[in-house]
Amino acid sequence: MNIKMIFSILGRTLLIEAALLICPMLVGIAYGESTYAAYLIPIGVLCAIGLPLTLLHIKDRSIYAKEGFVIVAFVWVLMSLAGALPFVISGAIPNYIDALFETVSGFSTTGASILSDIEALPQSLLFWRSFTHWIGGMGVLVFVLAILPGYNSGVIHIFRAESPGPSVGKLVSKLTRTARILYGIYILMTIVEMVFLLCGGMSLFDSVTHAFATAGTGGFSTKNASIAAFDSVYIEIVIAVFMFLFGINFNLFYLVLVGNVGKALKSEEFRTYVVLTVVSTLAIAINIFSLSENFGEALRYSFFQVTSIGSSTGFSTADFDLWPSFSKSVILVLMIIGACGGSTGGGMKVSRVMILFKSVAANIKRLIHPGSVVTIKLEGEPVTSETERGVHTYFILWIMIVITCTVLLCLDVNDFLTNFTASLSCIGNMGPGLNFVGPSCNYALYSPYSKVLLSLVMLVGRLEIFPMVVLFAPRTWRRG
Amino acid sequence: MNIKMIFSILGRTLLIEAALLICPMLVGIAYGESTYAAYLIPIGVLCAIGLPLTLLHIKDRSIYAKEGFVIVAFVWVLMSLAGALPFVISGAIPNYIDALFETVSGFSTTGASILSDIEALPQSLLFWRSFTHWIGGMGVLVFVLAILPGYNSGVIHIFRAESPGPSVGKLVSKLTRTARILYGIYILMTIVEMVFLLCGGMSLFDSVTHAFATAGTGGFSTKNASIAAFDSVYIEIVIAVFMFLFGINFNLFYLVLVGNVGKALKSEEFRTYVVLTVVSTLAIAINIFSLSENFGEALRYSFFQVTSIGSSTGFSTADFDLWPSFSKSVILVLMIIGACGGSTGGGMKVSRVMILFKSVAANIKRLIHPGSVVTIKLEGEPVTSETERGVHTYFILWIMIVITCTVLLCLDVNDFLTNFTASLSCIGNMGPGLNFVGPSCNYALYSPYSKVLLSLVMLVGRLEIFPMVVLFAPRTWRRG
Repeated sequence: MNIKMIFSILGRTLLIEAALLICPMLVGIAYGESTYAAYLIPIGVLCAIGLPLTLLHIKDRSIYAKEGFVIVAFVWVLMSLAGALPFVISGAIPNYIDALFETVSGFSTTGASILSDIEALPQSLLFWRSFTHWIGGMGVLVFVLAILPGYNSGVIHIFRAESPGPSVGKLVSKLTRTARILYGIYILMTIVEMVFLLCGGMSLFDSVTHAFATAGTGGFSTKNASIAAFDSVYIEIVIAVFMFLFGINFNLFYLVLVGNVGKALKSEEFRTYVVLTVVSTLAIAINIFSLSENFGEALRYSFFQVTSIGSSTGFSTADFDLWPSFSKSVILVLMIIGACGGSTGGGMKVSRVMILFKSVAANIKRLIHPGSVVTIKLEGEPVTSETERGVHTYFILWIMIVITCTVLLCLDVNDFLTNFTASLSCIGNMGPGLNFVGPSCNYALYSPYSKVLLSLVMLVGRLEIFPMVVLFAPRTWRRG
Repeated sequence: MNIKMIFSILGRTLLIEAALLICPMLVGIAYGESTYAAYLIPIGVLCAIGLPLTLLHIKDRSIYAKEGFVIVAFVWVLMSLAGALPFVISGAIPNYIDALFETVSGFSTTGASILSDIEALPQSLLFWRSFTHWIGGMGVLVFVLAILPGYNSGVIHIFRAESPGPSVGKLVSKLTRTARILYGIYILMTIVEMVFLLCGGMSLFDSVTHAFATAGTGGFSTKNASIAAFDSVYIEIVIAVFMFLFGINFNLFYLVLVGNVGKALKSEEFRTYVVLTVVSTLAIAINIFSLSENFGEALRYSFFQVTSIGSSTGFSTADFDLWPSFSKSVILVLMIIGACGGSTGGGMKVSRVMILFKSVAANIKRLIHPGSVVTIKLEGEPVTSETERGVHTYFILWIMIVITCTVLLCLDVNDFLTNFTASLSCIGNMGPGLNFVGPSCNYALYSPYSKVLLSLVMLVGRLEIFPMVVLFAPRTWRRG
């Protein structure tokens, strides 16, 4: 274990967070808030810890899979621990565990909140909340990669641990260039959405924060009623479309940028994602038709909620907890599947679910024709048995974590469905669940013990399970 | 596909069912019921179809995996289709779909019922209901194997498809002898339980039917209140202990019979099953302590319910739907895990869950130390990567079927938890679920469409998924 290298990278990350915290402070100053101490203290702490770490003398710059996983896991934990301070120091969320939950929910782009009155927060903290989504969205490490060069040896492992989806497509040979391109697309799309929202009459502040929350597929709104507060079909459609877009594999946007639209549209995962969205939207619209004024309205609510959950954002325009159980079950399935690999979205990822289906079909084939050689393909490329086993392991661990989390939450809150959907929602980085954690409710009902548990589960989900598991595996810390 | 051979085996199975139907008819005559037509008609139909099939001239007696799966799936479907007739003809369950649900639930040893007043049934039908559990328990095909020799070539495939658990231990070299030994143990244990129940003051009729339902880990009682109706701690303990026993791998009983008790007690799966039972019993007892008069009472209800669900029987002495959600979540976990492989119980099987855990741990090891060779073992034997992949596929399919079934049931009954637990309970061959299918309720609320769906899921669960999937795979029926 290259501890020095790990410390060095963590040190740089802390300094970056210190720099990032300047943004909400400036927002606070612009709005004439007296909250700057809430940012200055964490900035001071981050610099005090981060600076010495970056000055470490490092001989061996190589890092391997194990270090990669540990770094990714620690970065998210440390950034969350520090990112919670402004909420506590400002007094907006006096309890540190609550603030930590809110921050982990932000960085992990989950969007689950413990706040019942969001609008009571000062503007600078509302900005910070949404900003954590944006930072989390593309992954803190991709960010580190793009800004700080010199970590190229071994970074493939960090990238693999960080990037959602079963495999990392190397867009260009140099990894830092890849990160810069992805990050450029991310910024560009955020700005485009912001402009669209401004055109719809949203204030600059709301446009920026909601564009941040959409880009990271997070779901924190600045309004108690989420997107329903704006009561605008235009804004709903803009946000729904962008939620859908941010759920797509970013490699496809790169393909579009370099003019290869045809190849992008031929992506198997993209097509499946489109079919899932269309079929779910229609199924729910038909199911909630009787509750709506007309089919158009049903379609409007359905489309928004499907893109919101399908992309793992979690904004809402309707309380789907009041919908018939068929619609709820479709939403839970979307929560499990989630967005495309290589997007900012959560869930298991469409490509993983596709590999699961193909793998099962292949094994049934092998059963019917023993001895026959069956290979499975995704996007025209053969899926190696190593990848297949990885996806199986991911799926099994995912289910085990959801079950364990549900059982442990049941010790706290006496409602099975609440706990089950809270677990599903947190590991998939969605936000809302059903019953007491439905779209019109929040996670305040949970005890500090459960909030820490759910924070861990959000991080586990965001980091694609393995880094957190490796962090907690005793074997990782054994010598030799 | 050796169609002639399949027909011939199916023909013999139908004749066996005809013979089995004589038992409830005799019970009816003994109780002076006028229900014999309800048995004579199906017996006639079964003979009329079965006899010509057995007279088919077969040149090629070889059958392979594909045929094995198809035979097993068809046997259960056909036996259920015919076994439902007595309920309909007698008028006890006038609707054929309802009768079919009840019969599938019987043969699959699920114990889910659509009857709200069980005690209104004539004695002969109560006997038939419990008898289907007993027949189902050891598997129709093991039965066929033990009684009818001459099918030895290729029968290993049938046996593999039939026998619960990831691998079939060949107790002795000859397969028919194995079947006879298992069957002997099964009959012996049923008789011992019956005697114990008689000693507790149960009537002969109730002792026989409840011994049948316990042996098959089914759960049909002759009383509306299930085992609670007898209000006897002695009877509860006898049944709980036997439920626990019938959830153990039968190979271990064979080891005990031949004097190798030490080896039986060293079984990893057995030890895990014991630990699961003890831990769950204690956890639930502590959780329901506040609802009980004293800890002893809490322990009594908890132990009964844990053995009942852990063995997939489904008898009840308390309405666990009224317990706190922690207890309910533990029960749902037990529903997923189920009993040991090679027992009459359902669920995923303890050994499969153990392989899943070991497989996940091995893959995390591989992640931390890439390139290292990690093998997993069960009961001291290495688990082949083929078995590992089979267990993964089983798990993935299992989860997919539960999700699909839940979504489809939501089209019928507007309560997510009811549908989710009904799916879990039926695929695990448990019986009760939560909410509207809780221990004090029944499955009558479902539409015929849902009843057919749940019947299929019960068979899928009982036949360890693959035979039913192979039956429905278009590839199976393709020529060449």
